[in-house]
Amino acid sequence: MQLGVCYYPEHWPESQWANDARRMREIGLTRVRIGEFAWSRIEPEPGRFDWVWLDRAIETLHAAGLGVILGTPTATPPKWLVDSMPDMIAVDRDGRPRRFGSRRHYCFSHAGYRKQSARITRAVAERYGHHPAVVAWQTDNEYGCHDTVQSFSPAALAAFWVWLAERYGDVAALNRAWGNVFWSQEYRSFDEIDLPNLTVTEANPAHWLAFRRFASDEVVRFNQIQVDILRALSPGRDITHNFMGFFTEFDHHDVAQSLDAVGWDSYPLGFLESFRFSEEDRLRYARQGHPDIAAFHHDLYRGCMRGGRWWVLEQQPGPVNWARHNPAPLDGMVRLWTLEALAHGAELVSYFRWRQAPFAQEQLHAGLLRPDDAPAPAYAEAAQAAEDIAAIGPMSAAAKSVALIFSYDSDWITTIQPQGAGLSALWAAFDAYCALRQLGLNVDILPANAPLEGYAMCVVPCLPVVPDELLAHLAAFEGPVVIGPRSGSRTADFAIPDGLPPGAIFPAKVVRVESLRPGLVHPGQGWAVRRWIEHLETDAAAELVADDGTVACWRSGNRRYLAAWPEPDILAPVLQSAAREAGVDTVALPEGLRLRRTASHVFAFNYAPTPVAIPDGIGGRLVLGEKLIPPAGIAVLTL
Amino acid sequence: MQLGVCYYPEHWPESQWANDARRMREIGLTRVRIGEFAWSRIEPEPGRFDWVWLDRAIETLHAAGLGVILGTPTATPPKWLVDSMPDMIAVDRDGRPRRFGSRRHYCFSHAGYRKQSARITRAVAERYGHHPAVVAWQTDNEYGCHDTVQSFSPAALAAFWVWLAERYGDVAALNRAWGNVFWSQEYRSFDEIDLPNLTVTEANPAHWLAFRRFASDEVVRFNQIQVDILRALSPGRDITHNFMGFFTEFDHHDVAQSLDAVGWDSYPLGFLESFRFSEEDRLRYARQGHPDIAAFHHDLYRGCMRGGRWWVLEQQPGPVNWARHNPAPLDGMVRLWTLEALAHGAELVSYFRWRQAPFAQEQLHAGLLRPDDAPAPAYAEAAQAAEDIAAIGPMSAAAKSVALIFSYDSDWITTIQPQGAGLSALWAAFDAYCALRQLGLNVDILPANAPLEGYAMCVVPCLPVVPDELLAHLAAFEGPVVIGPRSGSRTADFAIPDGLPPGAIFPAKVVRVESLRPGLVHPGQGWAVRRWIEHLETDAAAELVADDGTVACWRSGNRRYLAAWPEPDILAPVLQSAAREAGVDTVALPEGLRLRRTASHVFAFNYAPTPVAIPDGIGGRLVLGEKLIPPAGIAVLTL
Amino acid sequence: MQLGVCYYPEHWPESQWANDARRMREIGLTRVRIGEFAWSRIEPEPGRFDWVWLDRAIETLHAAGLGVILGTPTATPPKWLVDSMPDMIAVDRDGRPRRFGSRRHYCFSHAGYRKQSARITRAVAERYGHHPAVVAWQTDNEYGCHDTVQSFSPAALAAFWVWLAERYGDVAALNRAWGNVFWSQEYRSFDEIDLPNLTVTEANPAHWLAFRRFASDEVVRFNQIQVDILRALSPGRDITHNFMGFFTEFDHHDVAQSLDAVGWDSYPLGFLESFRFSEEDRLRYARQGHPDIAAFHHDLYRGCMRGGRWWVLEQQPGPVNWARHNPAPLDGMVRLWTLEALAHGAELVSYFRWRQAPFAQEQLHAGLLRPDDAPAPAYAEAAQAAEDIAAIGPMSAAAKSVALIFSYDSDWITTIQPQGAGLSALWAAFDAYCALRQLGLNVDILPANAPLEGYAMCVVPCLPVVPDELLAHLAAFEGPVVIGPRSGSRTADFAIPDGLPPGAIFPAKVVRVESLRPGLVHPGQGWAVRRWIEHLETDAAAELVADDGTVACWRSGNRRYLAAWPEPDILAPVLQSAAREAGVDTVALPEGLRLRRTASHVFAFNYAPTPVAIPDGIGGRLVLGEKLIPPAGIAVLTL
Repeated sequence: MQLGVCYYPEHWPESQWANDARRMREIGLTRVRIGEFAWSRIEPEPGRFDWVWLDRAIETLHAAGLGVILGTPTATPPKWLVDSMPDMIAVDRDGRPRRFGSRRHYCFSHAGYRKQSARITRAVAERYGHHPAVVAWQTDNEYGCHDTVQSFSPAALAAFWVWLAERYGDVAALNRAWGNVFWSQEYRSFDEIDLPNLTVTEANPAHWLAFRRFASDEVVRFNQIQVDILRALSPGRDITHNFMGFFTEFDHHDVAQSLDAVGWDSYPLGFLESFRFSEEDRLRYARQGHPDIAAFHHDLYRGCMRGGRWWVLEQQPGPVNWARHNPAPLDGMVRLWTLEALAHGAELVSYFRWRQAPFAQEQLHAGLLRPDDAPAPAYAEAAQAAEDIAAIGPMSAAAKSVALIFSYDSDWITTIQPQGAGLSALWAAFDAYCALRQLGLNVDILPANAPLEGYAMCVVPCLPVVPDELLAHLAAFEGPVVIGPRSGSRTADFAIPDGLPPGAIFPAKVVRVESLRPGLVHPGQGWAVRRWIEHLETDAAAELVADDGTVACWRSGNRRYLAAWPEPDILAPVLQSAAREAGVDTVALPEGLRLRRTASHVFAFNYAPTPVAIPDGIGGRLVLGEKLIPPAGIAVLTL
Repeated sequence: MQLGVCYYPEHWPESQWANDARRMREIGLTRVRIGEFAWSRIEPEPGRFDWVWLDRAIETLHAAGLGVILGTPTATPPKWLVDSMPDMIAVDRDGRPRRFGSRRHYCFSHAGYRKQSARITRAVAERYGHHPAVVAWQTDNEYGCHDTVQSFSPAALAAFWVWLAERYGDVAALNRAWGNVFWSQEYRSFDEIDLPNLTVTEANPAHWLAFRRFASDEVVRFNQIQVDILRALSPGRDITHNFMGFFTEFDHHDVAQSLDAVGWDSYPLGFLESFRFSEEDRLRYARQGHPDIAAFHHDLYRGCMRGGRWWVLEQQPGPVNWARHNPAPLDGMVRLWTLEALAHGAELVSYFRWRQAPFAQEQLHAGLLRPDDAPAPAYAEAAQAAEDIAAIGPMSAAAKSVALIFSYDSDWITTIQPQGAGLSALWAAFDAYCALRQLGLNVDILPANAPLEGYAMCVVPCLPVVPDELLAHLAAFEGPVVIGPRSGSRTADFAIPDGLPPGAIFPAKVVRVESLRPGLVHPGQGWAVRRWIEHLETDAAAELVADDGTVACWRSGNRRYLAAWPEPDILAPVLQSAAREAGVDTVALPEGLRLRRTASHVFAFNYAPTPVAIPDGIGGRLVLGEKLIPPAGIAVLTL
Repeated sequence: MQLGVCYYPEHWPESQWANDARRMREIGLTRVRIGEFAWSRIEPEPGRFDWVWLDRAIETLHAAGLGVILGTPTATPPKWLVDSMPDMIAVDRDGRPRRFGSRRHYCFSHAGYRKQSARITRAVAERYGHHPAVVAWQTDNEYGCHDTVQSFSPAALAAFWVWLAERYGDVAALNRAWGNVFWSQEYRSFDEIDLPNLTVTEANPAHWLAFRRFASDEVVRFNQIQVDILRALSPGRDITHNFMGFFTEFDHHDVAQSLDAVGWDSYPLGFLESFRFSEEDRLRYARQGHPDIAAFHHDLYRGCMRGGRWWVLEQQPGPVNWARHNPAPLDGMVRLWTLEALAHGAELVSYFRWRQAPFAQEQLHAGLLRPDDAPAPAYAEAAQAAEDIAAIGPMSAAAKSVALIFSYDSDWITTIQPQGAGLSALWAAFDAYCALRQLGLNVDILPANAPLEGYAMCVVPCLPVVPDELLAHLAAFEGPVVIGPRSGSRTADFAIPDGLPPGAIFPAKVVRVESLRPGLVHPGQGWAVRRWIEHLETDAAAELVADDGTVACWRSGNRRYLAAWPEPDILAPVLQSAAREAGVDTVALPEGLRLRRTASHVFAFNYAPTPVAIPDGIGGRLVLGEKLIPPAGIAVLTL
């Protein structure tokens, strides 16, 4: 695994560049990511390019022996470009243009901007496509950040009509598929269809689902244009993009198809504060991040591509600037996060950013260096991580163990029509992932069409649309399969399927579903049905039954069906039983401890605020750390 | 009482219709409500009508012996109509057009749409006005649903000017009535007046009140046009409209004047979750609904018309799709809700809907049948209710007991200027209703101009504008009268009356009012003054005095005045005393039990999650159920 | 100190005026404030003035011996004026025009309205500028009320360009100062710059800071135009404006430069309910207001002008109408508030309003009289206060003791980029003020450029931009200085200064800052670090150290630096120590008791809901009240 750093030479006097490059190498960094917001410096006036500074910056980094990951600057089109075609601006759900003054102020569907995006990409690629320093390209930056996938602009509307016509052929088919007879929503032509925002009450969920698919496809199309140019003009370089955390607005499986390596940006503390974690977890892990945040995304994005190549393009190095509260990580966490990525198979971890900028929006975002050029705490931790990686040496890949199925349309469907406040397939997947990892298991998060050979068990936390490939793969799969609620509950056009859910994935009919407010529970022995319950007609066996007779889990052959929302206390016994049947060893991990096993090594990470011992039974020889692991500590054993 | 069901033949293959109709009859249904969202099927293109399917559907239902309640489809104008006059769309309070894509996307004030509404109503009435199957008409559907009474459109503004000119004659009178000298708000002509939204800080409350009166009158006018057409073209049929729950945006007393029977849509679980109930109640009654939700509206809407004819046009049959959490009712509740309507004098209960639709917005709304045509739990409960109704047999009407006065402008005034967060006349009325019902009393909720002869006592929970008729009726009334705070506190144009409130309704002057934050209380013996306190100058006697001397209730002759907000703990002793003086028997009901008495029968309903016994002293012979009533159970006694 | 009252003769029949004036004098009032919302009566049609009524009103008040404070009516331009130039309306942050129908519906940057504002000011001043009744002028009313300082209108944008050009000279300088190289935010000309609202994510904080400075300067400019006219046309009269509470949208120090006396509007109960007070305080002080609300503003606004002349132009007399909950003050509080103003050096307290209006927006705002002309409780309290003032007699001014530094840009900077939810310099100043006052100390709140001679100690709670004058004044200052976090942390253009904060104000480098969510604390002995922590590199001594070694307060020479957020429990020991070193006597005041000392008197005010005794050691002879002070009671001692 290589280490790298995000660097903005345009922010600093040229006199600092050589010294910066030297220090990067000194602490073991070999990659440097640059360029992704520099459009106004590359092309300060329409058509006038200034390559001089960038030529010199790349030369300087190259001279120091750093490989450059070069970003296309399309996330930040300059003001002169916006003023030349003001309707390139995206429109928010309330109908307001999202103006220049920060970033991502463009609409994916605007043909004019797509041309400009291709033009600047071509210009940069022509200049540096064959440069020996350039080892990879990043397209744009964090597609969708700041809620920018969906645009409710005239450009989006026109493109949506084309997309609908392609998908449905004729409008009668669309009316049928969406059930538009309901509420006289029938259309006579595609161009009668509006975008689904600003309706009196909720729009048809099939309308929303189509719009979200369309919006996702627009991201795919936008990205593909850059990829095609880069492949043509810069052969032999990897192409990547930096995905975000807990983000499902576009189908990452689709975008990943065009990439050589999936990148993502890992901010465990910011995510803990910003996403759906309990107040208790937010305090306990305030300085470590919840122990499964980074790992979940490592395993999710590794699964996006068949080859499984993936990079951390931005790694949190200290306090960030964008959460409601921004504490510093515990000493050691930056190193821990780096090695957790290593354990999950990353090829690269790149810290964001080299030096804290003293100006503009992110001036309170830490870097490896302070604004005054002195080392920030992460500087030494990055150096330590480089040494650790060397000390650990060559490593075998992880063996297949548990396959967890996640699809992006699952999350679209559950959030379009949650039926119970806050229910979502993404968080069902995350909770199932946590439950598996608390048992000490390795998990691969896979798309719904992925082959399952070689896995010991399979978990499908919540998959409303079950593709035929999955049914075929499951038919051939002999290990235990755990299927969560709402699976098989919708057609691809957001209707309840004939014959009722869940369809062929489990021999039952879901005849009624209920969502339950907090506090409305069906208690069992050490667990309870919460949030969601499904009533089944089935010949399957009731495996987990609440005190009042409510069935939380059904069993038929090697398959289990969870009729309750997959909360941790229900998942624990079900997954434990399934793992036992799968012949997979589990371990009762102390709170905050997490393992990751490769064929050659076992990694143990302590996210708890107190020292934790590796449980007996985890064998191997310590090559790093001790059995009693301090907070933010790591131990590595060889088998 | 008849039972019926809401049915959408256009959603299902014609091949199913006859079987559907047969099964309806089989379980005792005799009415079927259809057509109210079918415009796009009746008139798929401008001016091209397709009556064939609807002819056949009505024939099929008729052949099975079902009486049809036919709805005008004006709640869902099709897209082609909207595109032909885009300004028919309503505008929300933020100034945004409320677009096509769900329902109710029209502005009541748009003359073009009023014409179209008349045109389609006439077309349907001409076709089916004399059809023997058609027993009744429903105008439109749920006026005001999704916050659609108020529209801030140019059409509404122009109509508002006309309305103001009619009400005030000249603008100087308006300026005087509203007190526009305040903050230089004086106008020189009616067309200088804006709608009251989007002002810098709150608009003049008199301005808001006028606008809300106007918006209500627009609903009345819109409805009247359809009623006039239907009366002319379909003589002898009842005309109804389906009101909603806890909804005060238009004056239901006014709309009811044109109807033959008031309809309403009863969703106890959805309402519990959506409206102002405590978290404790939301849990305790999650599967039953608060015990007074349905009864309150039965008694409110029965009181809207002099004749008192009323129907439940939509009855919740299982989980709905539109609340934050949507649990299933306890087994038995659908039957219980049906018989509660019977006990309150309904002529009809119609379940919504026959079969759960597998598509579009309401796909998670239960029906009597599941999407796969098999019976849902409510199917058998409806059948059971039909049998129960037969078993109970002929029933005398209820005798007059307690009159509770409610006016819609009370709620407008209190919500325009609550003075303390969350205070509203609607909820004062509801709380007073609950307190009376917990004493086992029958209540008639009456408009402020209703005669009071025959009643034993009268409760006026909160009536800012006291009409002269009420003063006259009260002058002749000898039973106890309980008057709540803010009564008589405003003129019809939202000013404090000369001589200070409450005026002639009680011999006192309210010289100061205070609203109190939660926790700021004046404790009494087993009760406390909360939320609101009025200081009176009066010769009346202090009847209920807090420990610190604050007077919560004053007494003068047969009238009491509550100087505190009518919270349950204050209402209980006051209403108990009043009932005693009125010679009305009260009973201490166990939690969750409710009674309804007719001249011939006593009904007892158990809303509690545990069995409850009918208290001793409730006499009569059991004709249904047992003295110990299970959860969701019913007992009926004859006297 | 004089007492006065706000009066609206235009609201009442002329027949009442003389009697009103007589009664004002009867209870000891000598000033009457009129005219500030009367434009529609002064100029009912464009160019047609009606002076007759106002002439008579002023004559009547004059005849009774009252001095008139005359307001310009520019806060409420009439509808005809708005309709003559609709773009004079301000635009809100969401881009919506803020329409006529309440007040303050103008944009400060609109040249047309500035002309109209000058025209009406000139007209009124020409008419009454030399009238013997007129003793003072108030410009407009409550600049900024209802969030009206910032307008996002085309007029504001055009004016912003001019302002930017004046400040930065050329756009390259602006780009450098703002760090616009970040995210390609560079501009090629000033007119490429948008207003900072409606950006995709947060705009550059330097952009926001410039806009807020600009918006503040627009208020200064608007006010100056009126002041210049009034000075020219009404020589010898004081000019004032009424500031609000807890309001920082414009720089009050700047506006105050043009005034003769700073006015402010004191609503302790409304402020308690509306601003950042704990639920506990909101209950405890519901009827008194937090004990430091009024005093803080007295001391803040007295410090705005070198001469220190200041007035309370509106004093809460009973329940108000605009908070979420509006209780009545305890009996005695109106008198207490009046004497607290006296103790802090006010020249005038004017009650708002004479008689409660029975119409329009403020009909539930109490006055000295009820709507029916009878005295409200505050009537007698005002009379009592007049007697008390006479009884106390001549008073010496207060001696200098503690200087507390506050600047408006501090609050702009901390709220533009709080980094931790809810952190703000205003509230840091308020908390520091409370902590000082709880020690029995007198405080002067001063701008950052104020001289410090004569003060015993100096507290700088949070001052991101430290002006050179302050550094110079501190260099000469020998008393203890307590400096709070974020001080010196930003340049004037919102960048982290070279060499890191806090710069020359304390010998240290802040190398990392963290914001901490509630519950994430570093406990010390009886205190804890909460919300914010700064890590310093410094040779200073650690003075206050948490159990885990976190340093909350550093010490170097006579200066202390708080590295934690200045919460009360940390402030208490630090300020106590500093006061001891300063040789200033402190006293442990019982909860709710507050003192104010002048050179001749000690005032003690009891804000607690129970009686409180003046602590031993507070010497002097009682001239008012007793040592055991009842709730809402006052004691005054002479030294």
